[in-house]
Amino acid sequence: MTNTAAMLGEYPGSIALDRTLLARVIEEALVCFQTCTACADACLGEGNVAGLTTCIRTCLDCATICAATVEVLSRHTGYDADVTRAQLQACIAACKAAGDECEHHAQMHQHCRICADTCRSCEQACRDLLAAMS
Amino acid sequence: MTNTAAMLGEYPGSIALDRTLLARVIEEALVCFQTCTACADACLGEGNVAGLTTCIRTCLDCATICAATVEVLSRHTGYDADVTRAQLQACIAACKAAGDECEHHAQMHQHCRICADTCRSCEQACRDLLAAMS
Amino acid sequence: MTNTAAMLGEYPGSIALDRTLLARVIEEALVCFQTCTACADACLGEGNVAGLTTCIRTCLDCATICAATVEVLSRHTGYDADVTRAQLQACIAACKAAGDECEHHAQMHQHCRICADTCRSCEQACRDLLAAMS
Amino acid sequence: MTNTAAMLGEYPGSIALDRTLLARVIEEALVCFQTCTACADACLGEGNVAGLTTCIRTCLDCATICAATVEVLSRHTGYDADVTRAQLQACIAACKAAGDECEHHAQMHQHCRICADTCRSCEQACRDLLAAMS
Repeated sequence: MTNTAAMLGEYPGSIALDRTLLARVIEEALVCFQTCTACADACLGEGNVAGLTTCIRTCLDCATICAATVEVLSRHTGYDADVTRAQLQACIAACKAAGDECEHHAQMHQHCRICADTCRSCEQACRDLLAAMS
Repeated sequence: MTNTAAMLGEYPGSIALDRTLLARVIEEALVCFQTCTACADACLGEGNVAGLTTCIRTCLDCATICAATVEVLSRHTGYDADVTRAQLQACIAACKAAGDECEHHAQMHQHCRICADTCRSCEQACRDLLAAMS
Repeated sequence: MTNTAAMLGEYPGSIALDRTLLARVIEEALVCFQTCTACADACLGEGNVAGLTTCIRTCLDCATICAATVEVLSRHTGYDADVTRAQLQACIAACKAAGDECEHHAQMHQHCRICADTCRSCEQACRDLLAAMS
Repeated sequence: MTNTAAMLGEYPGSIALDRTLLARVIEEALVCFQTCTACADACLGEGNVAGLTTCIRTCLDCATICAATVEVLSRHTGYDADVTRAQLQACIAACKAAGDECEHHAQMHQHCRICADTCRSCEQACRDLLAAMS
């Protein structure tokens, strides 16, 4: 459905990262950006919103950072390994925080269950690419 | 692959928009955000970059505006039809500009062909939702 | 404090818009992006958060759209008047919605008072530039 | 001109970070977001754009990451030190890369001179806050 792999295939220069692991990070971060945005809003619409404020905040941060990850990882011109590495680490921290927090509400709210799973999956994709860079 | 429809299904309140058309806008804008980011970078990596500067700029704007569309359209709490309508119109203008510009380079660069098609498709999804709102 | 006017002065090509009005939009949108982000978070930290959910949402949308406005208006290469105009209209709608909503809470929460004033000011800057484009 | 300090003063809960250092990071990142966006576009408008592609890319990444820093650092509800720390480190890496690259073109292009100084200043503000967190 996405064009991630096709666009990587059309990049005119060389790409410094493993394309399979890279494509997975971009796609996971893209989905996590939308899912965390929607989960923060769903939490805001719940009757027990006062008990979900930490969840809303960690989801907003995770959405912001995942969108930044999509942008940084989709660029290959003038590649800088330090920026890529630091952005992956920020994404790992944000996905871990949101995944842990959504986990606490997963039995009560199905949107938190979906969001927790998505954050875990995005975190793992970032860890795998980071490990392959070392 | 995305969670768009599942997350719409878990929103605790009512949603003011047609869910099928809405889910399509969110998914198209998500893909268009990534594709335009990648196309701007691929253009930057081409030998004839000097002939692609307008294409780079319209793709960057389209990526920015599509990401904003994903966020605004993924929120339903405190819905405001005027903001939704104006954001859809901004997205239509950005997708039209990037689609037209990428079209000019589609025979020479396959990334521009993919990007042009994606922009057209996102533009149409926005037009369809906007029409259904009136 | 910002570099907006200095950077406009160093742009190598011609700029299609009135530089004074343009600089004002960029600076207002920059401040409004930060202020709305902070106001949404301050509302989230209030004891009466359940009464502020619409305010949080309109502030989040306004922050998103103001950041996009900063980006689109800071670019002059490959200028497209239709995209600029549509982005200004989206920014006007978002600032009006957030300004109106924060206004309702301005007597109770000083952050909403500051945010309402900032949104009004950004909205007016966008209207002035849009009027000068016609 | 900005509301950063005033909004920090109105946050209803406690703030885990030194307010002076925090306000400086937010303001520097805000200015750096706009300056890097404008510098990437000015480079795109230069006759020697083919020699500036790495500069354009590092400026785009720095703009993206600085905007994310503004958002993450402007939120205090549900504070997570790990996310804050990782985002500051990503911002340091992005500002260092863009500062170094713009430095190379500072004698030829005044926009790169301004941008290099802004990136250095933002990088230092992030380093100071990070040091105070340890």
